[in-house]
Amino acid sequence: MPASIRPICNNLCQTGNIGKQSSEPKATKTFVEQAGILGRIFLKGRHRAVYQVVILLSDAPSYALHPIAIANTPFREKFAIPRQPRLAPAVQGRLQLLPPYDDPKAVAGLEQVSHLWLTFVFHQTLTQADKPHLQVRPPRLGGNQKLGVFASRATHRPNNLGLSVVELVAVEPGVLVVSGLDLLDGTPIVDIRPYVPYADQVEEAHNHIAPMPPADIEVRFSPTAKAQALSAEQRLQQPVMAVIEQCLAQDPKPAYQQPGPEREYGVRLWDFNLVWHYPEPHTICVLRLEA
Amino acid sequence: MPASIRPICNNLCQTGNIGKQSSEPKATKTFVEQAGILGRIFLKGRHRAVYQVVILLSDAPSYALHPIAIANTPFREKFAIPRQPRLAPAVQGRLQLLPPYDDPKAVAGLEQVSHLWLTFVFHQTLTQADKPHLQVRPPRLGGNQKLGVFASRATHRPNNLGLSVVELVAVEPGVLVVSGLDLLDGTPIVDIRPYVPYADQVEEAHNHIAPMPPADIEVRFSPTAKAQALSAEQRLQQPVMAVIEQCLAQDPKPAYQQPGPEREYGVRLWDFNLVWHYPEPHTICVLRLEA
Repeated sequence: MPASIRPICNNLCQTGNIGKQSSEPKATKTFVEQAGILGRIFLKGRHRAVYQVVILLSDAPSYALHPIAIANTPFREKFAIPRQPRLAPAVQGRLQLLPPYDDPKAVAGLEQVSHLWLTFVFHQTLTQADKPHLQVRPPRLGGNQKLGVFASRATHRPNNLGLSVVELVAVEPGVLVVSGLDLLDGTPIVDIRPYVPYADQVEEAHNHIAPMPPADIEVRFSPTAKAQALSAEQRLQQPVMAVIEQCLAQDPKPAYQQPGPEREYGVRLWDFNLVWHYPEPHTICVLRLEA
Repeated sequence: MPASIRPICNNLCQTGNIGKQSSEPKATKTFVEQAGILGRIFLKGRHRAVYQVVILLSDAPSYALHPIAIANTPFREKFAIPRQPRLAPAVQGRLQLLPPYDDPKAVAGLEQVSHLWLTFVFHQTLTQADKPHLQVRPPRLGGNQKLGVFASRATHRPNNLGLSVVELVAVEPGVLVVSGLDLLDGTPIVDIRPYVPYADQVEEAHNHIAPMPPADIEVRFSPTAKAQALSAEQRLQQPVMAVIEQCLAQDPKPAYQQPGPEREYGVRLWDFNLVWHYPEPHTICVLRLEA
C-alpha cells in the first residue's frame, strides 16, 4: 500500500469488500477527496477484480449555516403546529429575507414559480451533537412506538434541519409571503428553492408509515369563542377561524391521551391563547380566546 | 419602551407597520426568542390596533452541520451529472452512514418507504459567506441568462445545501443503497428523511422556468466504446452503458456551445474517462472509455 495512504488508514472506521483481496494487493488508483473525508483505494486482486476500501475519517469536517431569512408565523409554540406543511393552507407567514439576500436580485424569476421548498433549522429543539437521537416516537404512531430517525420527519434530527413545501403567495421587497407553512415563529430559514413538479412529484413513491394525511376530527366553536375569533380576524387581518379549524382538526394532543370534557387544552397563536376541550372523544370545542 | 428592548433596537434593520404607532406607544407584549435573533413588540396605538416591529439582528447565530453519511457514486466530477435527481435511474450509489448513525436503530422502519430526500453539502463548490451569489446562470436557460438564486436550484447557494429525492434500493448494515442520484462521489449528506407522497406531491404546483425535463438527445456508441463499456459492466458490476446513455442524453455541454465533430469532450466516471463527440448537432457519439 503506498506510503501516502498509511496515515489515513490509521483512522479507518469502515471497510468494504476487503476480504477478497490477495495477500499483496497492488493499488492501482488512489484518491483522497476534501482533505481526507473520504479516501478510496482500488485494489487489483489475484482475479483482476476491482476491490474497494472506503476509509471514513472520524473527524469529518463540519459546515456552518447562516440564516438567510426569518419566518414570521402565527405559531408561538410547537403544540398544534400542523404535522406536515400544507395541511393548514389558511396559515400565512412572511419570510423576512436577511441582508444581503433582501436584494430584489436574489428573488428575480420567482414570480414564475408556485411553490417553494424551505430548508430551516428546528431552533427550539436543537439536538446536541453529543446526544444524538437515533430513534424517535412519531405522534402519528401514537407517540409510543419507536422508529429510526431517518424513517421519520420528527423534529429531533441529527443536524436539526427541517424541510417544508409552501405556496408562494407574493413577493414583496425583502419579504416572501407564503401559505400552508408549519413553522414556529422566528424559525431561521437556511435555503429557499423552487418546487420543480417533474422532479419532485414522484408518482411511483410509497410510504407505508404515513400513507395518507391524518384523519380530521370535528372542530366546533362556542358562541364566545366564535365572537372572539371574528374580532381577532378584524384586529389581525388574518383568517383566524380557518387557521384554528385547520390546526385543531388534526388533533394536537398525543393520541394516547383520552381526556374527559373537564380537561382544557391551550396553545398560543398570534397574540392570544386558544383554549379548547373534548366534549366527547374525537370532537374539539373551542371554548375561548384569552388575551 | 422597556429597558430590556433597547439594546436590541440599536441593531434594528427591518421594521414593519411602525408608521401607524402613536407618539407614546405602550408595549403590551414583548418577547425575544433565541437569544436575540428575533424580537417582536406589540404596541397598542391610539386606535387600539396592534402594531408590530420586527427586529432582526445583523449577527444572527449560525449553526454547525456535521455529515451523517458520505455518498459513494460513479461521478468523479460535476460535468455530466444529471441536472435533477431521477433523470438517470440507472445510477446507483451507496450512502455510507457515519457513526453513530451507522447503528441499525437509526434506519428502523425504512423498509416501509420507497424514496428518500437527501440534504447534502455541495462540497466542491463551497460559496464563501463573504462572497454571496445573489444570482445564477442556470444551464437550462443556456448558461447566459441570470436568475435569482432562490428561483433556481443551481449549486452556488447561500449555505451550499443541496436537496435530492432518490429511490431506496436496499438497506444494508451501515449503508443505504439508492438509485437515481445526482451527487458527486464523496458528497457529505447532512440529513435523510422519507418521501411522504401526500405531502410532497403538490399536484397544483407549477414552475414555468423548468416546466418539463430537458429534452433528451440521441446517444450512440462507437464499436470500440460499446465493447469497452460492456467490459466495464463486468468489471464494475454496474449498468455502465445505461448510466452513460442516461447521463449523456441530457447533453452535458453548455447550450451555447456548438462544437464541430472534431472536438472531443471527456468526463471521469468510476475508474475511466469517458470520451464523446458531436458528429452532428444534438447527437452524441461515445468514442471510447480510457483507463
